[in-house]
Amino acid sequence: MKKFINSVDTLLNESLSGFAMAHADIVRFNEEPHFISRQAPTQSGKVALISGGGSGHEPLHSGFVGHGMLDAACPGQIFTSPTPNQMMAAAQAVENGGGVLFIVKNYAGDVMNFEMAAEMIDCSNATVFVNDDVSLPKNHSTGRRGVAGTLIVEKVVGAAAENGKDLAACKAIGERVNEATASMGVAMTSCTVPALGKPTFILNDDEIEMGVGIHGERGRETIPIKSATEIVEQLSTAIEEELKPKKNQPALLHINGFGATPLIELHLIYNLAAQFWQKRGVDIRRSLVGNYTTSLDMAGCSITLSLLDEDLLKLWDAPVHTAALRWGM
Amino acid sequence: MKKFINSVDTLLNESLSGFAMAHADIVRFNEEPHFISRQAPTQSGKVALISGGGSGHEPLHSGFVGHGMLDAACPGQIFTSPTPNQMMAAAQAVENGGGVLFIVKNYAGDVMNFEMAAEMIDCSNATVFVNDDVSLPKNHSTGRRGVAGTLIVEKVVGAAAENGKDLAACKAIGERVNEATASMGVAMTSCTVPALGKPTFILNDDEIEMGVGIHGERGRETIPIKSATEIVEQLSTAIEEELKPKKNQPALLHINGFGATPLIELHLIYNLAAQFWQKRGVDIRRSLVGNYTTSLDMAGCSITLSLLDEDLLKLWDAPVHTAALRWGM
Repeated sequence: MKKFINSVDTLLNESLSGFAMAHADIVRFNEEPHFISRQAPTQSGKVALISGGGSGHEPLHSGFVGHGMLDAACPGQIFTSPTPNQMMAAAQAVENGGGVLFIVKNYAGDVMNFEMAAEMIDCSNATVFVNDDVSLPKNHSTGRRGVAGTLIVEKVVGAAAENGKDLAACKAIGERVNEATASMGVAMTSCTVPALGKPTFILNDDEIEMGVGIHGERGRETIPIKSATEIVEQLSTAIEEELKPKKNQPALLHINGFGATPLIELHLIYNLAAQFWQKRGVDIRRSLVGNYTTSLDMAGCSITLSLLDEDLLKLWDAPVHTAALRWGM
Repeated sequence: MKKFINSVDTLLNESLSGFAMAHADIVRFNEEPHFISRQAPTQSGKVALISGGGSGHEPLHSGFVGHGMLDAACPGQIFTSPTPNQMMAAAQAVENGGGVLFIVKNYAGDVMNFEMAAEMIDCSNATVFVNDDVSLPKNHSTGRRGVAGTLIVEKVVGAAAENGKDLAACKAIGERVNEATASMGVAMTSCTVPALGKPTFILNDDEIEMGVGIHGERGRETIPIKSATEIVEQLSTAIEEELKPKKNQPALLHINGFGATPLIELHLIYNLAAQFWQKRGVDIRRSLVGNYTTSLDMAGCSITLSLLDEDLLKLWDAPVHTAALRWGM
């Protein structure tokens, strides 16, 4: 394993410190327990949005803390859920009279730990669970995983909270976005978790993993590599079967890199995916291409389609000022 | 080789089309000959900034086309210089009465082709050459290479041009930034050029390449992997010997990923590099961390220090609206 680290034990702390130093105008880092929160105060009564999960998916979630998006993010160790004391400390730091909305990717560990925190904090709170990964059936043991669609939930709900929507309304908007969003990914290579020191799984030189999870979970099937057009058709068809978009329905198309796939390939994937949806009459109104929900050094990408209506598109377009997403200010 | 492509021959065209579709609000793509230019018209008399070079370094340069930065970018095939007809067509498209300033990374092919274009276009023009890579001696055969510092030149000169500075002033500012900027990189792995189908060079599992170029050129030395702290010290010391920064001198610190190195590691590198400079009394006033000048799927990163004075910092801070850099608007 070759990585830029001093030791596996100090990696997360050194990295989060560096993140907070590089973006000191936007965020601050609380070291014990770990959480990232906004530098600037929020309006009194605003719903506080808190997300989190295992590290290794950067910029998710810490890179989305700032005006118009999250109030705090709780990073666990790599691919490991944060603990309830992190969410409780973050809630205490950022709650501002409007209650707390947790945005949680649907993984057993994250769900359990966020639920424990939700029970223990003494302010009003609610939770949105994100489960946009259509590679698994809906009745899969613990349900579908939350993947790259989480960013869209966080951005749209973040704008709603900034606009003064209350806790119930923010939760409802988050659930609406989650319902309207579907993703599926493909891996070219495994990632290597530093503490493990070797690839999580092995793919042969001519194989790819369709439906891979963002921690390197095996997906639907291991198949011989295909052309980019065939890969995009297979991923998009799975999304189409789930969302069943209508003609002229407005949508956001998000191509997410897992960390080691060059932008030149992600833009090619975007081209093919946009054509797929245009042929079906879907109105691609917004686009996002890049490495946002990563899996350390995994090569691969995911396609996310989110059927945002005009109201939700307005929230997507609203100003945002975070380390990883910034526009309108 | 596993990549998301349909064929090596169509990769660049399909990718540039996708890039322009995803960012249709900012750029347009001219297919024959290839160049990317701004969607929005510029103010009459503004100096037009044109850069370019081999593809495979995305988001450089196409991702920096837009308000406050470049007017056009000419992408060659992967790691191959663009041809003079691209620069000439781009110049004709974007020249707006203020002349054309070419910003060129110092590689023999790029220099030759941009010089040919400069001789043949019939508007006033000038060129800034960028050669910030300190891994090679100054008297190296064709001089030092232009690497991640190019972004800083393009951003600062872009703001000056937007503010109405004339061609000579823009050129002078570009040269001032280039003089004040030094970079050095390290590779963990080679990249794989699609047309070649195999890694450009081989590093053993315990080796890294100090001073690597952004096309996978071998650097100063191949050494056994060290701790992140030791790697940062070695890179930063080379930069220090070149720039000899004074106490309290303001600076921009840029950590650039080569494409396959996770953000969690780049933030750790930022932390260590910032400490290195702080110990020497350098005043790190601005930061940029991420994958901006990439080498396809190479794992590795570079450190860039740019001694921007107050005037240049103001230009760095000026509004920019491109696919890859966006703030203030």
